[in-house]
Amino acid sequence: MLTKKLNDLSSFNALCSMPLDFSGLYNATDDSHRVTAGGNLEFHWATAGIGNEHIDHFASIVDDMRVREKFADMCNGERINIGEQRSVLHHLLRAQSAPNASLSPVWKRFRVENVRACELAEELWQEKRFDAVVHIGIGGSALGPELVMEALSYLPQRYIVRVVSNVDPQALISAMKGLNPERTLFLVVSKSGTTQETNANLQSLNIDSKKQVIAITTPKSSLDRPDDFLSVLYMEESIGGRYSISSPIGACIISLVYGAEQFFAFLRGMERSDVLCHGENITENAALLDAVLGVYYRNAREYPAIAVISYVHVLQRLSAYLQQLDMESNGKQSDVTGELVDYATGPIVFGEPGTDAQHSFFQFLHQGTITVPLQFVGMRNPLDSSEDSQRKQSLLNANLAAQMVALARGQENQNPNKRFLGGRPSTLLLADSLSAEVMGSIIAHFENKIMFQGFLWNINSFDQEGVQLGKRLTNQILHDPRSDLVLYNMARRIGLV
Amino acid sequence: MLTKKLNDLSSFNALCSMPLDFSGLYNATDDSHRVTAGGNLEFHWATAGIGNEHIDHFASIVDDMRVREKFADMCNGERINIGEQRSVLHHLLRAQSAPNASLSPVWKRFRVENVRACELAEELWQEKRFDAVVHIGIGGSALGPELVMEALSYLPQRYIVRVVSNVDPQALISAMKGLNPERTLFLVVSKSGTTQETNANLQSLNIDSKKQVIAITTPKSSLDRPDDFLSVLYMEESIGGRYSISSPIGACIISLVYGAEQFFAFLRGMERSDVLCHGENITENAALLDAVLGVYYRNAREYPAIAVISYVHVLQRLSAYLQQLDMESNGKQSDVTGELVDYATGPIVFGEPGTDAQHSFFQFLHQGTITVPLQFVGMRNPLDSSEDSQRKQSLLNANLAAQMVALARGQENQNPNKRFLGGRPSTLLLADSLSAEVMGSIIAHFENKIMFQGFLWNINSFDQEGVQLGKRLTNQILHDPRSDLVLYNMARRIGLV
Repeated sequence: MLTKKLNDLSSFNALCSMPLDFSGLYNATDDSHRVTAGGNLEFHWATAGIGNEHIDHFASIVDDMRVREKFADMCNGERINIGEQRSVLHHLLRAQSAPNASLSPVWKRFRVENVRACELAEELWQEKRFDAVVHIGIGGSALGPELVMEALSYLPQRYIVRVVSNVDPQALISAMKGLNPERTLFLVVSKSGTTQETNANLQSLNIDSKKQVIAITTPKSSLDRPDDFLSVLYMEESIGGRYSISSPIGACIISLVYGAEQFFAFLRGMERSDVLCHGENITENAALLDAVLGVYYRNAREYPAIAVISYVHVLQRLSAYLQQLDMESNGKQSDVTGELVDYATGPIVFGEPGTDAQHSFFQFLHQGTITVPLQFVGMRNPLDSSEDSQRKQSLLNANLAAQMVALARGQENQNPNKRFLGGRPSTLLLADSLSAEVMGSIIAHFENKIMFQGFLWNINSFDQEGVQLGKRLTNQILHDPRSDLVLYNMARRIGLV
Repeated sequence: MLTKKLNDLSSFNALCSMPLDFSGLYNATDDSHRVTAGGNLEFHWATAGIGNEHIDHFASIVDDMRVREKFADMCNGERINIGEQRSVLHHLLRAQSAPNASLSPVWKRFRVENVRACELAEELWQEKRFDAVVHIGIGGSALGPELVMEALSYLPQRYIVRVVSNVDPQALISAMKGLNPERTLFLVVSKSGTTQETNANLQSLNIDSKKQVIAITTPKSSLDRPDDFLSVLYMEESIGGRYSISSPIGACIISLVYGAEQFFAFLRGMERSDVLCHGENITENAALLDAVLGVYYRNAREYPAIAVISYVHVLQRLSAYLQQLDMESNGKQSDVTGELVDYATGPIVFGEPGTDAQHSFFQFLHQGTITVPLQFVGMRNPLDSSEDSQRKQSLLNANLAAQMVALARGQENQNPNKRFLGGRPSTLLLADSLSAEVMGSIIAHFENKIMFQGFLWNINSFDQEGVQLGKRLTNQILHDPRSDLVLYNMARRIGLV
């Protein structure tokens, strides 16, 4: 059965003529408009601007776009990443068991390799050979580790830890400040083994690779040289870079720095979100609800962006993480049938932590000429129980509650400069307190939301053809600059030739 | 004479029917389409998608919107921040002399206070009482220091330096890791003296304020207590928080960590950009050209956002800095006459450094369904001259040149998923290498661009009424939560009551 086009659906067209509806906010109790998003993580939508009628249409869109069928195809290992002819199997990394017999061998390989990463980490910790770990990777091989290293930084760290991604020489130079290179373990992470930035940074290291480099890559890549490294850990083609935090990429760095049990707690949190994706009722399937809500904002209300505002300081890189996850997955121009789409796909994603962001771009969110829906993240309790931290957490969370209400409700004033039009929707992911498990649930919730949005837009969320042209022209400048006059003049302008 | 409305201008309406024009790119040499943006900083627009006809209309819009007259009013000390009835005098902080006699006393006070900040820093350095400096402020009192501390981190640092902004208890706890509180100097920065986050963090410190806290505030604020602190440094109401990096806020932290001469070099760089703002010819006035170009993108082409991509790793916080500067200044709904505007004002601003961003959201920039103009920043040379750094800088800059061409020109392909539609405009700020002076010019260029855009949109870029409602509701939750049922239920939801 062919999937219909979003623009042709009667439910979608009904939503286009339905404005946001905040009336529910006035009847909302603290128990309403909430659903689990995995374990103790809750998804709250009292300020999302939708009522029951919206939700009915949401459910129809999900049916019409065959979202559940596409999700089942993915779970069953179909090659839904059609451009690259690959299955999409990151869910298997954290599943308790394989969904079917044919996937069982893959599931076992994944498990074995994650366990191998954790055991290697624990062994190295026993050996006490290193004081620091430097993780070298870029994009999906860096943003996850960067986010999780900081998210768990309230725990004791076994090593000084740094993440290096940029090819700018200063990135590695800064990261190595204060470290003894001989007592530093390097993780070199590239799925393809050919990432120019990662290889350039590896080349800068003047160290004994055999003793102090672990490579993480796919089998048979140019980094798959077990004799040249302390160890090689493997991921597979069916794990996208931006979906790789639950693979050995996450297993190795999390286990090294925080211990293997934290990595397994993190995986458990992801799995607790994943299982909810099978929920039939849209109001009991947090990722799916969040996904259709986002499509309503993007396509029916035509909001071009979303802001991710975490009122959790150690999640300050969550917005950058989601910026990649979302914009690289769903910033697409063609659908899975190979046609250019005639509707909007994924939004711009940006953010900074609250309350910092309140003193930065919240002026724009309250009174700018564009409506930007917000995805708030918060924790009821601080990471330590001192009286001072309790006091500051209350202040932090009072700001969070105030912003959600202020944005939605606005405030009348005779003076247009002091008027708040309101009608700015938001949702909230909330837990009692941060932990590796909650962190896993947060990441998996967003992975699943973005996956469902790809199904709703009928696009392939798992390739990234849009990065290829830049790579090709970079090589042309480096190896044959005179072959293209426009490129050549640009290279001259920047002092390259 | 009344300012006309943007939408009513014939030049603006002409631009609305003029698409982007990249034909100039094919005739561009490395010397064309470039102008100084202050000292050695250059503004390049070969890939901006505009031709001579666009520029003629730009010049008309500048005339019609009385941009030069408004700028002259600002320079002359008129109270152009009408909502708060204040002059806007940050240019005076770095001027060689006052523009008129009536401003001369202010100019002298500013100079005296900046010099006092620098002398205090140098004295403390001689005394060797401290090992670390912790700068506590939020928004404009934090983003500038954070940016410049990292930008100059290739220089020797006199102290370990940390910037704390968030009221989340973990922010201060993280910042204090590894520091000896007794050997730490604290800068506590709040223009009003009443910033809740900054006061909460000050309250958390268990130290001898008289010996180790410098307060930076306005005269008579609640922080203006010279007997309670090591010293109090003053700024004035005419300096907006987000325009305060050239005030004692910047003077103190830059001089402490890098020495007073670096602060003066930074100011000199700003002044070299500022003087260009008086240029009559729009193609010789980089900030004005950049400003009108942005209005063309935002209003005529209806692009909702801009991306700031710095191919300079140590400028990784430039996008967050400009996000505040731009979105808080120009995210406005009403014009200076007190009417709600019926045209778009400032854009969404986001970014991450290149090449990192190429592996994150560049998929979206190349193939997403929204066009996002880019502001690139680059340096011809690395910060050290090793062969390894030269090699990596070439790779970095080849990527920069390749992206500018790829985004503008695109590439045909039979397969829509591999097709690059092109037509994505960008500009470039480029210098030979980074220094305090170049850093000053970069910041001043953007300050001035945003100022000119405020004049073009006929809005007040210097207030921020949009942050007030959240503040009021926060206090209501903290002090009288039961007075408002919606607020109360939200506070319960988050576990506050």
